[in-house]
Amino acid sequence: MTVSAAQQARQDIREGRHNGPTRGVAPGFVQCNLVIVRKALAYDFLVYCQRNAKACPVLEVTDPGDCEPRRIAPGADLRTDLPRYVVFRNGRRQRDEPNLLHLWEADFVGFLIGSGITFDQALERAGVPTHEHRWVIRTAMPTVASGPFSGPLIATMRLLTPAQAIIATQVTSRFPFNHGAPIHIGDPAVIGADLDHPLHGPHPCAIPEGLVACFWACGVTPQAAAESSGIDLLIAHAPAHGFISDLRADQICLP
Amino acid sequence: MTVSAAQQARQDIREGRHNGPTRGVAPGFVQCNLVIVRKALAYDFLVYCQRNAKACPVLEVTDPGDCEPRRIAPGADLRTDLPRYVVFRNGRRQRDEPNLLHLWEADFVGFLIGSGITFDQALERAGVPTHEHRWVIRTAMPTVASGPFSGPLIATMRLLTPAQAIIATQVTSRFPFNHGAPIHIGDPAVIGADLDHPLHGPHPCAIPEGLVACFWACGVTPQAAAESSGIDLLIAHAPAHGFISDLRADQICLP
Repeated sequence: MTVSAAQQARQDIREGRHNGPTRGVAPGFVQCNLVIVRKALAYDFLVYCQRNAKACPVLEVTDPGDCEPRRIAPGADLRTDLPRYVVFRNGRRQRDEPNLLHLWEADFVGFLIGSGITFDQALERAGVPTHEHRWVIRTAMPTVASGPFSGPLIATMRLLTPAQAIIATQVTSRFPFNHGAPIHIGDPAVIGADLDHPLHGPHPCAIPEGLVACFWACGVTPQAAAESSGIDLLIAHAPAHGFISDLRADQICLP
Repeated sequence: MTVSAAQQARQDIREGRHNGPTRGVAPGFVQCNLVIVRKALAYDFLVYCQRNAKACPVLEVTDPGDCEPRRIAPGADLRTDLPRYVVFRNGRRQRDEPNLLHLWEADFVGFLIGSGITFDQALERAGVPTHEHRWVIRTAMPTVASGPFSGPLIATMRLLTPAQAIIATQVTSRFPFNHGAPIHIGDPAVIGADLDHPLHGPHPCAIPEGLVACFWACGVTPQAAAESSGIDLLIAHAPAHGFISDLRADQICLP
């Protein structure tokens, strides 16, 4: 049986041969952000995703205790197939984990959420660079609450030329299940973007003359909700360390 | 304060001045299918929607007991603002209801699901007629189950010329939150479409020479699940009698 690039990448991650960011890994396959909560919180979290669908477009919900995302990546294992995990207990981030084999519980529900890494290849094909000038940034825009989940919208910021910003808007609009079009272009202060404390990306975060800041809703948003809301247990992918599904970007995107 | 066509239509329905189908009412506004279940079934139903997102793209989930869809139609009332309701008890369809004032319970959760009526205006603008040759049809394609919810996919069938079918595919692809692109074009037997027993639309259902059958996933699908699965209580819009939201079709669709 032929092994796809996505299956190979998951196997490499599972067996420890790849433990870094997944950007550029298995290009053409849909990458996902991961959130795991206990069943008792799963409804409120799923409604939170619905109410904040640009940040949290859900591509699969696993059955309680099942660590296999049977629909978008049959045979995969959510406990081992991401390179790095973050764990929040009572709203505080714990030590990162390389896998969840020792932490998995019988009432864990996994949510796989479309990631913006998915459209990197489409951006590159359209001449928009994706390998630099990219950050994960906290904004002052509130999300819509659901049950105990609330918090700020987290955004991916890319610095582009005005011409690239227009093309990037066109290209990413075609990916409504991977955050879609930008939420803001221009002055970071308008959305209260905290450039002084990026959650991911190089320091310092300065905007060179001639480039415009472009912001997309980001799948790290649930992690900020875990912190803001003091959720008792939420496990997620480490930023930029995503889950590689069997879905193809060219199938899930629009014409 | 100016009253929008959507607000006016909801008021007309609420006050009994309109009790027929909502196709063509308040054109340009997003119309929704409605499902109401008790809180105890809400999680399984929301996961069912996620797993069958082409049939059930969720645009709002109300809080338990709250009959106001606060995000997509502030001030509206799910008990009165649809022209006709269907009620399923233990999987059997009861008498239709003109409103839910006497039936509403404190643990009811409302789900508003994007409807294909939304793109009628865009189809008309593109020269695709929407006022005839249109049915709601049961197919033999299974949906993906969630908890007690399972059943066949229900489809909207339109009969179009080949040229119209191509344009309709282009136009509806721009509406991923209202069922999006067709699920099938051509021979109804391929998806087991039951043309002898349409759920809505004129009898008999014959395909004239030169027209091609085009099928879209339909928001009546949860009603078939209620029947197939013997759900104890599920309330929905009567087919073609939708909820008119404040969202604008031209905002929710893609370029």
